[in-house]
Amino acid sequence: MINYPNKKKTSNIKLSSSANRGMNFELMINQTNEFYLDNDIAIIHKKPIPIQIVSVDYRVRSAARITEAYYKLPSTTDYNGIYQGRYIDFEAKETKSKTSFPIKNIHEHQVTHLTRVKEHGAISFIIVYFALLGRIFLLDSTYVNEFFQRSKGNKKSISLAEFEKFGHEIKESYRKPVDYLQVIDEYYLKAPQ
Amino acid sequence: MINYPNKKKTSNIKLSSSANRGMNFELMINQTNEFYLDNDIAIIHKKPIPIQIVSVDYRVRSAARITEAYYKLPSTTDYNGIYQGRYIDFEAKETKSKTSFPIKNIHEHQVTHLTRVKEHGAISFIIVYFALLGRIFLLDSTYVNEFFQRSKGNKKSISLAEFEKFGHEIKESYRKPVDYLQVIDEYYLKAPQ
Repeated sequence: MINYPNKKKTSNIKLSSSANRGMNFELMINQTNEFYLDNDIAIIHKKPIPIQIVSVDYRVRSAARITEAYYKLPSTTDYNGIYQGRYIDFEAKETKSKTSFPIKNIHEHQVTHLTRVKEHGAISFIIVYFALLGRIFLLDSTYVNEFFQRSKGNKKSISLAEFEKFGHEIKESYRKPVDYLQVIDEYYLKAPQ
Repeated sequence: MINYPNKKKTSNIKLSSSANRGMNFELMINQTNEFYLDNDIAIIHKKPIPIQIVSVDYRVRSAARITEAYYKLPSTTDYNGIYQGRYIDFEAKETKSKTSFPIKNIHEHQVTHLTRVKEHGAISFIIVYFALLGRIFLLDSTYVNEFFQRSKGNKKSISLAEFEKFGHEIKESYRKPVDYLQVIDEYYLKAPQ
């Protein structure tokens, strides 16, 4: 397991204490997924960033060097995998706002993707990190889609109060900075759906 | 749906007739997945190629240009998604050999990944295209792992006869050049496992 910066310092401390505020959210999720992987709890990976490659230099054959490429819009979400036999699919986002999450941070085709995989039996959601509050919420794709449709009107964001009402707060566990499977256990697998 | 080259010409013709031999295997799989997607049969996507980005030019802010990057070894497989509520995970490879598939084309961590997701309830396999024969086989991850372990001895490849014995041949269907879900239907979902 990779020893991320701050890992030893923060692994026992609650997020709400702001200890992890400086830690990159993607690293926090990756570290959590590595814990799940190392302990054979779930197999969930981050997908590579989609890149359009334009030009490659093959002169050194042992290491082809990409010399021109551009970022592409992702067609799906960042994370997917399997847990307890269920297909898991989610997108993770961070916001500096203390009051709401701007929906424009999620692309429409990602909302469509989350909705569609759910219709096929997946557990799909977004995870939003309110970095300045040190609070993390999981919001089911059904609500993501509702709020996304609403954003075509005047209301362009999901308020913190709405995350508190419709989402589930994710707590940090020992060595799991974003222990979202705890929420999945409690609200998706144990409770009637 | 993207109109791939040759699509109109080949969509009604059997692979074994060699009509598709010139078609890129990745395009054939992508075209099949698009058919599944467009018809709401399954949501299965190819993951982006993993790239290590070293240098990016931000001078034109509207289109950040990657000026130095390298291919990374994939940590998982190329394709995953959901079908009938089941998590699907596979790697697809092409060979020019008429008699066997060299196992070195699959990385050890990919074999491990396929084995692990199966243990968690996935349907996982490889698809191998014998391009010069126009034949395509699906081989379950259990056999992939067995043949991979064997390859640490003298036998470095999986023979065509072994694909015929332990795998399932994939037929082309109308608008589905590599209709692997037909095999999944027949051997994974209908039959007892």
